[in-house]
Amino acid sequence: MKTTELLGEVAPDLARLEEYMAEHLDSPEPLLKDASLHPLRAGGKRLRPALVFLAAKFHRYELDKLMPVAAGVEFMHMATLVHDDVIDRSSTRRGWPTVNSRWGNKVSVLVGDHLFATAVDLIAKNSSNDTIRRLARTINEVVRGEIQQTNAAWRLDLTEGEYIERIGLKTASFFGACCHVGARISGAPDEMGRQLERFGFEVGVAFQMMDDVLDINGDVRDTGKPVGSDLSSGVLTLPVIYALHHSAERERLRAMISARSFRDGQLEEALEVVRKSGGLEYTLDLAARYVDGAKARLRDLPDHPAKETLLNLADFMANRAV
Amino acid sequence: MKTTELLGEVAPDLARLEEYMAEHLDSPEPLLKDASLHPLRAGGKRLRPALVFLAAKFHRYELDKLMPVAAGVEFMHMATLVHDDVIDRSSTRRGWPTVNSRWGNKVSVLVGDHLFATAVDLIAKNSSNDTIRRLARTINEVVRGEIQQTNAAWRLDLTEGEYIERIGLKTASFFGACCHVGARISGAPDEMGRQLERFGFEVGVAFQMMDDVLDINGDVRDTGKPVGSDLSSGVLTLPVIYALHHSAERERLRAMISARSFRDGQLEEALEVVRKSGGLEYTLDLAARYVDGAKARLRDLPDHPAKETLLNLADFMANRAV
Repeated sequence: MKTTELLGEVAPDLARLEEYMAEHLDSPEPLLKDASLHPLRAGGKRLRPALVFLAAKFHRYELDKLMPVAAGVEFMHMATLVHDDVIDRSSTRRGWPTVNSRWGNKVSVLVGDHLFATAVDLIAKNSSNDTIRRLARTINEVVRGEIQQTNAAWRLDLTEGEYIERIGLKTASFFGACCHVGARISGAPDEMGRQLERFGFEVGVAFQMMDDVLDINGDVRDTGKPVGSDLSSGVLTLPVIYALHHSAERERLRAMISARSFRDGQLEEALEVVRKSGGLEYTLDLAARYVDGAKARLRDLPDHPAKETLLNLADFMANRAV
Repeated sequence: MKTTELLGEVAPDLARLEEYMAEHLDSPEPLLKDASLHPLRAGGKRLRPALVFLAAKFHRYELDKLMPVAAGVEFMHMATLVHDDVIDRSSTRRGWPTVNSRWGNKVSVLVGDHLFATAVDLIAKNSSNDTIRRLARTINEVVRGEIQQTNAAWRLDLTEGEYIERIGLKTASFFGACCHVGARISGAPDEMGRQLERFGFEVGVAFQMMDDVLDINGDVRDTGKPVGSDLSSGVLTLPVIYALHHSAERERLRAMISARSFRDGQLEEALEVVRKSGGLEYTLDLAARYVDGAKARLRDLPDHPAKETLLNLADFMANRAV
C-alpha cells in the first residue's frame, strides 16, 4: 500500500505494531480471538498510530511507551468501525466481509466492547491518566459526531457549518488527539503539542472530506465499499449539501432526498447530479485549504525527517484514491 | 427499594452517587443526554458501587476518590446492559422500555460506547492505572462470559462446571473487581484486598444463580422482565441443566430444547418441568453455599459496621425477589 511508503519515517515501528496488535488480541475464547483479529487482518491505513508515532519524533521518542498507545488508538478506531457496521448493517468493509456479516450482531457488539476494553488496558499500561482521559473523551466526541449524523439524516436544511462540526467530532478530533498524546508522551513542550494537535485536527477534516468525495466518486475496487453508501442511508455530506444549493437540478435532487429512499436507478441519478454540480470540486478545494492550514502549524517544529513525513501525509489526505 | 435499607452503611453516599452520575451524563447533544440518562432513571440496585464503597470502609475512606470509580463501575455495567438489550432485542428492562426499543439500535450502540468511555474518563480521574486496567480487564471477562453463553446456546451437553465458569466471568468477576478496587483505593493491605475480592466474587456467583432462579420462578411484577426469557433464547442455566439430568420428564425437556425454539405453550411447559425437577432448590442450595463461603472471607476483617452490612448483603444475594 502506498501509505506505508509515505510513512517511511515510522514504517518500521508500524510494522512492529502489526505484530504487537495481533499478540494483544489473543484470547482463551477461540471465537472471540478470531472475530477480534478479523478487522485487524482486513488491514487499514493505520493513520492514527502513525500520527502518535510521528508526533513523538520531535522530542524523546520512547517506543515502549508509544507502542501500547498506538495499538490502543487503533483498537479504539476498530471498535468504532465494528460497531458502525452493526449499526449500518454493512456486509463489507475494505473489501472484506464485516464481523457482523460473518458472526452476527451479537458477537460484533461484544467484539467492539472487547477491542475498546483492550485499548484502555493497553493505554493505561505506561501512560499517564491524562492520556487515558483524553482518549476516552475523544471516543465521546466520535459518539457525539455519530449522533449528530443520525439526527441530520435526510435533512435538506443541513448547513455546511453543521457538516464541518460533525466531521470535526467524528473524525478530526481523533486525529488531533493522536498527535496530542504522541507529543505529550515524548515530553514535547505544551505549545508544540498544541500545534501538532491542530495539525492532526485539520488533516483529519481534510481526510474526512476526501472520504466523502470518494463515497460519491470513488472506485469500489479501491475503497472496498459501494459507491453512494452515505447518500443511500441519508447521510448528507458536503458535496451533496453544495449540490442542494447550487446544482441546476437541485429541485430534482431535493425531491429524491425528501423521499428518504432511492428507487431503481435513482441513487445513481442523484450521485450524477452531485457530480455535475461542482460539489466535488468545492469539497476538494476546501479540503486543500485545511491541508494548507495544517502544514502551516508545523512551521516552528525543529527540522527532523518526521516533519517532511507529516507534510507529505497532509498532502496525501486530500489526494488519495483509497 | 429494600436494598437501600440493606445498604444503610453507605446509603447516604449511594444517594449522592445518583446525583453525581446524572451530572456526569450531561452532554451538549440532547438526544445523547436523554438516551444515556434513560437507563440511569430506570434505576437499579447499584450493587457494584455499593461494593466499591463498602470494601473501602475498613481503611481510609476517601469519598472524593471513591465516587468517580463507583460511578464508573455503574456506567460500565449500564453499558453492558444497553448493549445486551440490543443483542437480545429486549424491549423492557426493570419494567421500563429499553434504550433500543425507544431510540433504536444505532443510538443504543452509541449510548453504550458513550457510557463506557465516560466510565473510563471518570475512573482515570483520581485513580491509579492499576484500577483502570483492572476494570478494563473485568469488562473483557464479562465479554468472554457473554461469548461463552452465545456458544453454549441450546447445547444439551452443557455442564454445571461450564455454567459456573460462565457466570464467574459474566457476573462474579465484576463484583470481585469492585471490592478489590474499593479496598485498594482505601489503602487496605493486599491480603485484605484479596479476601474482599473473593467475597465479591462469591456473592456474585450467588447473585447470578438467584437471577437464574428468578428467571424461571420470579414474578414479572418484581423482576420487570418476562419469565423464561433466558430459556426462550437458548440460555441454559443451572436449574435447567439440573432438570436435563434429573427430571423424570427429562426426555420431553430435551426434545423441546433440541428444537431450538418453543411453540405455543411449550415454554411454560418446559419451565414447569424445570420447576418440578428440584433444579431450583438445587441451585438455591448451591448459591447458599457460595454465600457461606463469601461470609467466611470476612472473618479477619476489623470490626466495623460495614462488616455487618456486607454480611447482610451476602444473605440478600440468595434471598431476594428482585
